[in-house]
Amino acid sequence: MKQHFSQRVRGAKRSAIRELLKLTEQPDIISFGGGLPAPESFPNKELAEIAYDELLNNSANVLQYGTTEGSRTLRDAFITWLEPQGIHTTRDELLVTTASQQGLDLLCKAFFDPGDVLFCGLPTYLGAVQAFKLFQIDTVGVLLEDDGMSIEELEAQVAACKAAGKTMKGIYVIPDFQNPSGITLSLEKRKQILDIARREDLLVFEDNPYGHLRFAGESIPSLYSMDTDGRVIMLVTFSKILSAGLRLAVMITSQPDLMDALVRTKQATDLCTSKLTQHLAARYMLEYGLDKHLEDIRPIYREKRNAMIDALEKHMPKGEGIRWTEPDGGLFVWVWLPEGIDAQDMLARAIEQKVAYVPGSAAFVDGSGHNTMRLAFSSSTPEKINEGIRRLASVVKAEIAANKVGTS
Amino acid sequence: MKQHFSQRVRGAKRSAIRELLKLTEQPDIISFGGGLPAPESFPNKELAEIAYDELLNNSANVLQYGTTEGSRTLRDAFITWLEPQGIHTTRDELLVTTASQQGLDLLCKAFFDPGDVLFCGLPTYLGAVQAFKLFQIDTVGVLLEDDGMSIEELEAQVAACKAAGKTMKGIYVIPDFQNPSGITLSLEKRKQILDIARREDLLVFEDNPYGHLRFAGESIPSLYSMDTDGRVIMLVTFSKILSAGLRLAVMITSQPDLMDALVRTKQATDLCTSKLTQHLAARYMLEYGLDKHLEDIRPIYREKRNAMIDALEKHMPKGEGIRWTEPDGGLFVWVWLPEGIDAQDMLARAIEQKVAYVPGSAAFVDGSGHNTMRLAFSSSTPEKINEGIRRLASVVKAEIAANKVGTS
Repeated sequence: MKQHFSQRVRGAKRSAIRELLKLTEQPDIISFGGGLPAPESFPNKELAEIAYDELLNNSANVLQYGTTEGSRTLRDAFITWLEPQGIHTTRDELLVTTASQQGLDLLCKAFFDPGDVLFCGLPTYLGAVQAFKLFQIDTVGVLLEDDGMSIEELEAQVAACKAAGKTMKGIYVIPDFQNPSGITLSLEKRKQILDIARREDLLVFEDNPYGHLRFAGESIPSLYSMDTDGRVIMLVTFSKILSAGLRLAVMITSQPDLMDALVRTKQATDLCTSKLTQHLAARYMLEYGLDKHLEDIRPIYREKRNAMIDALEKHMPKGEGIRWTEPDGGLFVWVWLPEGIDAQDMLARAIEQKVAYVPGSAAFVDGSGHNTMRLAFSSSTPEKINEGIRRLASVVKAEIAANKVGTS
Repeated sequence: MKQHFSQRVRGAKRSAIRELLKLTEQPDIISFGGGLPAPESFPNKELAEIAYDELLNNSANVLQYGTTEGSRTLRDAFITWLEPQGIHTTRDELLVTTASQQGLDLLCKAFFDPGDVLFCGLPTYLGAVQAFKLFQIDTVGVLLEDDGMSIEELEAQVAACKAAGKTMKGIYVIPDFQNPSGITLSLEKRKQILDIARREDLLVFEDNPYGHLRFAGESIPSLYSMDTDGRVIMLVTFSKILSAGLRLAVMITSQPDLMDALVRTKQATDLCTSKLTQHLAARYMLEYGLDKHLEDIRPIYREKRNAMIDALEKHMPKGEGIRWTEPDGGLFVWVWLPEGIDAQDMLARAIEQKVAYVPGSAAFVDGSGHNTMRLAFSSSTPEKINEGIRRLASVVKAEIAANKVGTS
């Protein structure tokens, strides 16, 4: 039946990592694999009360089709929530999407022809890479430094694309506690990226799932809030700040032309997002407050992050070229292993030792990053994090030893 | 900002009909426009109880990410429900989608390159046409007769596409009470379409939102149940049989290759469908029974359909070339007006008279059908249906009179 496949799915293979990670559902495995929000962060009692009331008393509305643009109640609640963040917007500038993965799908559809160039981090979010590849976008990776994308390399890549006559369309940025690296883009670099985008007439796609989960340090203004000519499109998902199961996000653009294209595209994609889940989020925001909720859940992530950093310091071998990020928020720690080690290859051994992670290489669009891994601290307890890192460290030590033997 | 648009959105314009239909939200307008399920058909109390329980006692599951393939509970419940319909399937053959519009999006992505041919009815479902156009598919319309797609014309179109060297990929069929026409495909023609698909190695996309809303006559077996070599992919949405607001459907294929491509495609599109809405549907099926529910709601639609047919017979002018379908199920009656009348043009006058419908022409991929309109009887009361048809008949009479004056 493969003769029926489109070009866009012909090249792609089922992910080997994904198959390996399925093994991590076994209860005795400590998994740092999936980037899952902490289940104890879900305000389930409040949502249960709201759901009961909405279904009982507002069913002709919440069980019916909604508008493609999204519920007015939710958009209005969102506008109010954004104001103190320096983001001043209106109802017509917001599009509710079936979580941010759909936002990425819509951006690809509306703005990219096959071969168009999109600049992204090295590494960047794997789910975004999958969406970009499906639309045959030419993803050009730009090295991430400790303060985000290398501006020097971005400039060099822009120049190279120009010289090659390529059509450059945009820059994809996850500014805060980036997935997978946990790296945050500095204020100075945000400004420089906006300057380059303006000069080259590029769109900027600012995907910010983790920014509100900052548990230390000072917030940095969003690129959207610093944008002067409407070229930043921002995606804010509810997945990590309220619930991933609601499948809800909001996409923001101040440009009516862009919004019009996105709305038409969404209409052909899934008609509308669930009114029921939209009303759950909207009423939660209005009746309980999302900022109050965020204050409550940030300590959950801080504790887990600290447990992971402590465990890494305690168990991981030193002086072998191993290092890791120490993020002030988000869900992930990123680990660089010694050059000789292939984290994808090592995963099978880690699973034997009942611990799992995501090898970094799939997040590098240039095929590099073989010696990196992403550790999600978000969905384990501090005790499990310590034990999992202990197991992982022993796997790494064995790998280094075997590697030395192998290369001697 | 339009310089950033992809080719696929460049051509498309915001629908004039859609803008007109926004006016129909005014409470004094009787709208036969949107194909909305009857709100009184939603089992809201039962869903409220289930939602409360799931959110209170199963939140770590339903508020978390789910697998791309969909909830096992829902897929298992669906398998059991399909058995008596002659559809024998397994969990691996089902993919839960964010309603059937997403199913169409995934089919386009997985199987169509720009310019590939898809055969569809004249008319066919407007939402499907929008998805097909977004993927630059060459949609070839085949005239619908009283018993469905003209086999003679389908053969002629296949021959023409072959002669032109085009790549033919599939046939899109809405077999029961088709949207927009209300026409049902006969058993004989289902077999003939399967024969042609086999001979030409085409996929068949069987989209069946209305088949379970049959309130008179005998059911006809699905194409999926008669398929002998796995080329039918079936879409069954919950939108009309349980609730449109849950945004849930199931896509079925017996071919692992095709399923694999669809799963990978969905992963890049929205990762997964809401676990919460999946569990609402699954538990409703298990605890209350979907067949029992369907028995309860079919009379609602029968009464509305009868009211509309009665009103058409009572109010519409006879002998002017006006005729309409009399469906045994579904949501729609389809009306052919005299050749000289443009239903899209007439809509503005109808709205002045406080009645609305969907002009048929947008549902014809060849641009014909200017003298047709779709009337949804599903979301009005019998009284409103009678009054709305009375208003509509007066608009039609005036149009015929003006037309005669105009052409004399």
